[in-house]
Amino acid sequence: MNISIDAMGGDQAPKAQVEAAQNAIQSFPKVNITLVGNESEIRKHITNEKQITILHTTEKIDDTDQPTTAVRRKKDSSMVLAVREVKEGRADACISAGNTGALMTAGLLYVGRIKGIDRPALSPMLPTLDGKGFLLLDVGANMDAKPEHLQQYAIIGKTYMEMVRNIESPRVGLLNVGTEAGKGNELTKATFPLLQSSDINFIGNVEARDLLSGVADVVVCDGFSGNIVLKSTEGTAGTLFTLLKKELTSSIVKKIAAGVLKSGFKEIKNTMSYSEYGGAGLYGLKAPVIKAHGSSDATAIFHAIRQAKEMVEQQVVTIIKNEVAKVVERE
Amino acid sequence: MNISIDAMGGDQAPKAQVEAAQNAIQSFPKVNITLVGNESEIRKHITNEKQITILHTTEKIDDTDQPTTAVRRKKDSSMVLAVREVKEGRADACISAGNTGALMTAGLLYVGRIKGIDRPALSPMLPTLDGKGFLLLDVGANMDAKPEHLQQYAIIGKTYMEMVRNIESPRVGLLNVGTEAGKGNELTKATFPLLQSSDINFIGNVEARDLLSGVADVVVCDGFSGNIVLKSTEGTAGTLFTLLKKELTSSIVKKIAAGVLKSGFKEIKNTMSYSEYGGAGLYGLKAPVIKAHGSSDATAIFHAIRQAKEMVEQQVVTIIKNEVAKVVERE
Repeated sequence: MNISIDAMGGDQAPKAQVEAAQNAIQSFPKVNITLVGNESEIRKHITNEKQITILHTTEKIDDTDQPTTAVRRKKDSSMVLAVREVKEGRADACISAGNTGALMTAGLLYVGRIKGIDRPALSPMLPTLDGKGFLLLDVGANMDAKPEHLQQYAIIGKTYMEMVRNIESPRVGLLNVGTEAGKGNELTKATFPLLQSSDINFIGNVEARDLLSGVADVVVCDGFSGNIVLKSTEGTAGTLFTLLKKELTSSIVKKIAAGVLKSGFKEIKNTMSYSEYGGAGLYGLKAPVIKAHGSSDATAIFHAIRQAKEMVEQQVVTIIKNEVAKVVERE
Repeated sequence: MNISIDAMGGDQAPKAQVEAAQNAIQSFPKVNITLVGNESEIRKHITNEKQITILHTTEKIDDTDQPTTAVRRKKDSSMVLAVREVKEGRADACISAGNTGALMTAGLLYVGRIKGIDRPALSPMLPTLDGKGFLLLDVGANMDAKPEHLQQYAIIGKTYMEMVRNIESPRVGLLNVGTEAGKGNELTKATFPLLQSSDINFIGNVEARDLLSGVADVVVCDGFSGNIVLKSTEGTAGTLFTLLKKELTSSIVKKIAAGVLKSGFKEIKNTMSYSEYGGAGLYGLKAPVIKAHGSSDATAIFHAIRQAKEMVEQQVVTIIKNEVAKVVERE
């Protein structure tokens, strides 16, 4: 199996990408990795080239680049070349921690959609109290989604959680403003009956306040709402940690007490972090394309590689294609 | 000035309502309060009847009641009677901690909309790091909002923050998925230019992750998105406090260290709590109608009374009416 990695995308590139690649080939002997980017910069961090190929390029898409323009103009960028490795059959999956919009554009343009999927969904795993996490789709690939898109997300999410995260009959919830049927906006009201008639374990509406308690394994919503859930969660956790830090360092006695609790606070930060879950998949494309967080370290990229590997092994794309075809047939 | 209070709505009714009313007449000598509800239950908590009138009724709208049906059928409920005190000119504002949907229905039906406002907005103050808070409208009165509704919310929010919270030229932000102009869904894209051309201090798009840092004084969005911000924030804070509590009580040494930090944790909880800011206003109605949180204690109800009083004193409704009329004239 071959996985291509945009070695130049993200805040800790290429160090995080190179280290993760080297760890991954130790853990997953069947995986070969192509690191795409500036060869001399990549070589600075390489200690073992076994199963690693470098595809050299000096062009790079920046986070501030306008996505569609960047993908069209920067044809030799590390991101575009990494995605093209998949298109041309030399890689089975690809990973980037770079510009999210550009990766979506490149994925759509070069990898393409699964037949029956109108729009791919950008789908991160978010943390839950029990440590299992849930898959949220979509968080921003498709701003004005239609009910049938949310139905497709439900099928994608269910398949992913079943095959990659080994959850039997994953509970699929519809993000809404109340749990009662009939609640919500035009989109959720029209989506509810569609999900009820789908071949999934639909548990009904779920509220944003219950997500981190683990009320569902898969939560579907339009990209605008999903983006707001993601960023509200990040923002609130960040604000609380800021307040905590300020409070715990406000006197010497408090600093000592905080020292005793340090490991505990770290534990909490880890529970709330989603690097362990891999990256946000661009699910609905013909091959796994994984968007790792821009601040990804080697551990986060390692988990994204594991995620890509498991998607390929479990043939997640083929299963999604078959499941979607069944829906189209029924209609 | 007269303020009517639904004494039977909310988890701590009527005790919280009665205590708050008694504290309010001490602090605000010009305020008279009508407590609407079961007289014998109310009397259990009354120690001083000065400036307090009781309007007796035994009917009550429950949280589980379907809002429109409840308002139509339970015409003698404490909530409906409290709202009717405003309609019939015996009160200048009213407050309830009961069924949110029912209060919106009763407010629309009996108090009515300000001319030029298509839909009132349910508008809570949310906490910020600096303790000043921001006004979020709408969080659920109007699920499928149109650009002109968001423009009306901007005018309402600006007026409220200026007149009641004494903020000069309040910064108004549009909730969106990115800060750049041109980002978002159809609604936000169409709203952006409308806000740019409005007579407000429009600071552009704001992201959900920056709200608690105090990036804006007023944030406008459709009711679905606002509800998600509100509940994601609540849910994330709740989850973090649960994790913290679990961690801090996991050993005796940790319990002792946590004891030292107790006051600090309480401080943080207070910063993140919004009871100090009063209730969520149903702004856009012809008189102040305030929805206090269902779990409101006497302090929260007291602050809702203060909020209603200041809205009446500052003639917020009249100013909103004039500001909205200017927009209509310009068009």
